[in-house]
Amino acid sequence: MPVIEGSYPVGRPGIIARYREYLPVTNDTPLFSLGEGFTPLVHARWLGDELGLKQLYLKCEGQNPTGSFKDRGMVLAVAKAIEEEAEAIVCASTGNTSASAAAYGALAGMQVIVLIPRGNIAIGKLAQSLHYGAKVVAVNGNFDDALRLIRVLTERRRVTLVNSVNPMRLEGQKTAAFEICDDLGVAPDYLAIPVGNAGNISAYWAGFKQYHHAGKVSTRPKMLGFEAAGAAPIVHNRVIDHPETLATAIKIGNPASWQKAVAARDESGGVIEAVTDEEIIEAYKLISRLEGVFAEPASAASVAGVIKMVRAGRLQSEARIVCVLTGSGLKDPDTAIARAAGVLETDATIESVEGALGWDQAAVQSGQLVEAAPAAS
Amino acid sequence: MPVIEGSYPVGRPGIIARYREYLPVTNDTPLFSLGEGFTPLVHARWLGDELGLKQLYLKCEGQNPTGSFKDRGMVLAVAKAIEEEAEAIVCASTGNTSASAAAYGALAGMQVIVLIPRGNIAIGKLAQSLHYGAKVVAVNGNFDDALRLIRVLTERRRVTLVNSVNPMRLEGQKTAAFEICDDLGVAPDYLAIPVGNAGNISAYWAGFKQYHHAGKVSTRPKMLGFEAAGAAPIVHNRVIDHPETLATAIKIGNPASWQKAVAARDESGGVIEAVTDEEIIEAYKLISRLEGVFAEPASAASVAGVIKMVRAGRLQSEARIVCVLTGSGLKDPDTAIARAAGVLETDATIESVEGALGWDQAAVQSGQLVEAAPAAS
Repeated sequence: MPVIEGSYPVGRPGIIARYREYLPVTNDTPLFSLGEGFTPLVHARWLGDELGLKQLYLKCEGQNPTGSFKDRGMVLAVAKAIEEEAEAIVCASTGNTSASAAAYGALAGMQVIVLIPRGNIAIGKLAQSLHYGAKVVAVNGNFDDALRLIRVLTERRRVTLVNSVNPMRLEGQKTAAFEICDDLGVAPDYLAIPVGNAGNISAYWAGFKQYHHAGKVSTRPKMLGFEAAGAAPIVHNRVIDHPETLATAIKIGNPASWQKAVAARDESGGVIEAVTDEEIIEAYKLISRLEGVFAEPASAASVAGVIKMVRAGRLQSEARIVCVLTGSGLKDPDTAIARAAGVLETDATIESVEGALGWDQAAVQSGQLVEAAPAAS
Repeated sequence: MPVIEGSYPVGRPGIIARYREYLPVTNDTPLFSLGEGFTPLVHARWLGDELGLKQLYLKCEGQNPTGSFKDRGMVLAVAKAIEEEAEAIVCASTGNTSASAAAYGALAGMQVIVLIPRGNIAIGKLAQSLHYGAKVVAVNGNFDDALRLIRVLTERRRVTLVNSVNPMRLEGQKTAAFEICDDLGVAPDYLAIPVGNAGNISAYWAGFKQYHHAGKVSTRPKMLGFEAAGAAPIVHNRVIDHPETLATAIKIGNPASWQKAVAARDESGGVIEAVTDEEIIEAYKLISRLEGVFAEPASAASVAGVIKMVRAGRLQSEARIVCVLTGSGLKDPDTAIARAAGVLETDATIESVEGALGWDQAAVQSGQLVEAAPAAS
């Protein structure tokens, strides 16, 4: 078994060390970390001004080591796999989960196996996992075949499954709720979050409940979950056979944590609703242009949902609202490229450049800039 | 002028707030932040074992808000631009600098102008800047034309240049040296760092000197700078007209901070040497596969240099060595895809899957895994 002691960032504890009293860890659980957690909570002042919200915050989970919130749950799942002397970890994912598993598996010195159905594999989505050294196996079958084979593997070998059915995943993920409370000094009034496989909303709710129960905060937030309109099984209360949305990270038709998410909604007095791809893209652009935060499209579902509720008069201006941004925009460069504005082309003269920028030539004479202030100010 | 107060992460200070006593800030400098800094210092245990180094660390600057170390200098440069009531910021860059300028300009509510020579523009490199809302102007000329036009612009308008000739850039960047000392409790013995425009090595050295002078640490590190072999003007002591390297972030033939970097090398008793693209790619793969850290290729020049020096017997096993990883691997997905291992394809049977993984069937009978331990263990 690999020895892990010392392999964590020196002066900045990872989530296991920071929150161990709230996690199912033992003296044998290795304290290892790639520096997950401690993600910024950015006060979204410009967007808040536009919406009339004074306390709107963005929890920027894309700044985790592999670029998504999955690292919080994965570090604990892999630490427990080490404790249980597993010799490999396995998952079925083409996205953020497999990237996170591959990184923490590498850190743990464990083999990482990613099992996926063959066909329509976008190598770009898998490049990160492959780069960390995971073995990606594409089986000649569908997703159910891959899951069946994973179950057989875990029965035959000392292999730990690290998909979100592994309860350690949600245990680790809940630390994001602790961080928000620690940063604000109180619990938020609302926690807005994208809903795909529904593990994250369930984990946050578990975290808020636990912190409240421990007396660390005196209130609990209402949970506001947002599915993509084309992939909204919880909203419609039925499995969606062919989910469709450009927000690939939440393109899920039959969420693994469905019942937990419904419980989080109902216990907190919150909602789970749908936002369209158009609303997601609007929010995706707004947080970049107004706040300088670049998140992957699925992340923007939380902001899209808040915008929609504000426009319907359902959120009061004094409410303390945290929107979870689940992953880095760098995870999906194609969408950014497709939606980016064009490059302005000009001659190499100052008049041409200023003209392209829409700057009034006459203004130079009077020392005034005409159009340098952005639309948002 | 935009009001910025309150627009910084709530419970985690940005670099201006955290290190203001060491920075040229005034009471009028806005304390704003996207959560730059606080990046992990990961103990590279596996790679250290391979190299016989007990205290090898990776400073993971790719976890900054826009995915590179540039955010440290940019937040200060933009804060000072606000203080000076600039109405726009401008830079000449197609890479990490323009992305960082675009993000902090958005946060500041300022127009951001990126001026570049026309032709051979890879939209992918610019997508991040465009997404943050920067205006990218491609002039019909070469890089010198772009720089000349920027100078004219800054003379005609209240526009602040935020390329690394802006001294605030290096002032902000030096905070990474402070963080390393704060995390370790001492200064490292060696600081290994990629050298392109040479601002970063200059800034780190300024930071270590300042912390030492202030009595925060009792020693200063030797600075180990590494240029790419095809773009090594400082090593060869001459301008390279056509620099060539796959490490695009350090593909520079005439560094802006050339003399400062030479001074850092000589004052610290360090070196500036070259590493080949092959050595960079070897290091790029090793840090991912052994440590679970995904950095852009240029970042790996620091690790490549340390590997080269260890193999030549020039670094002792007890030395405390920090390698700076300047940017996220997600910044350059193409290189990761091109260098990634292939996907294994199999039939949907357990025998096929185990065969593809190279697992011995007989071993199942005895309950032993044959090949689950990685090469590194």
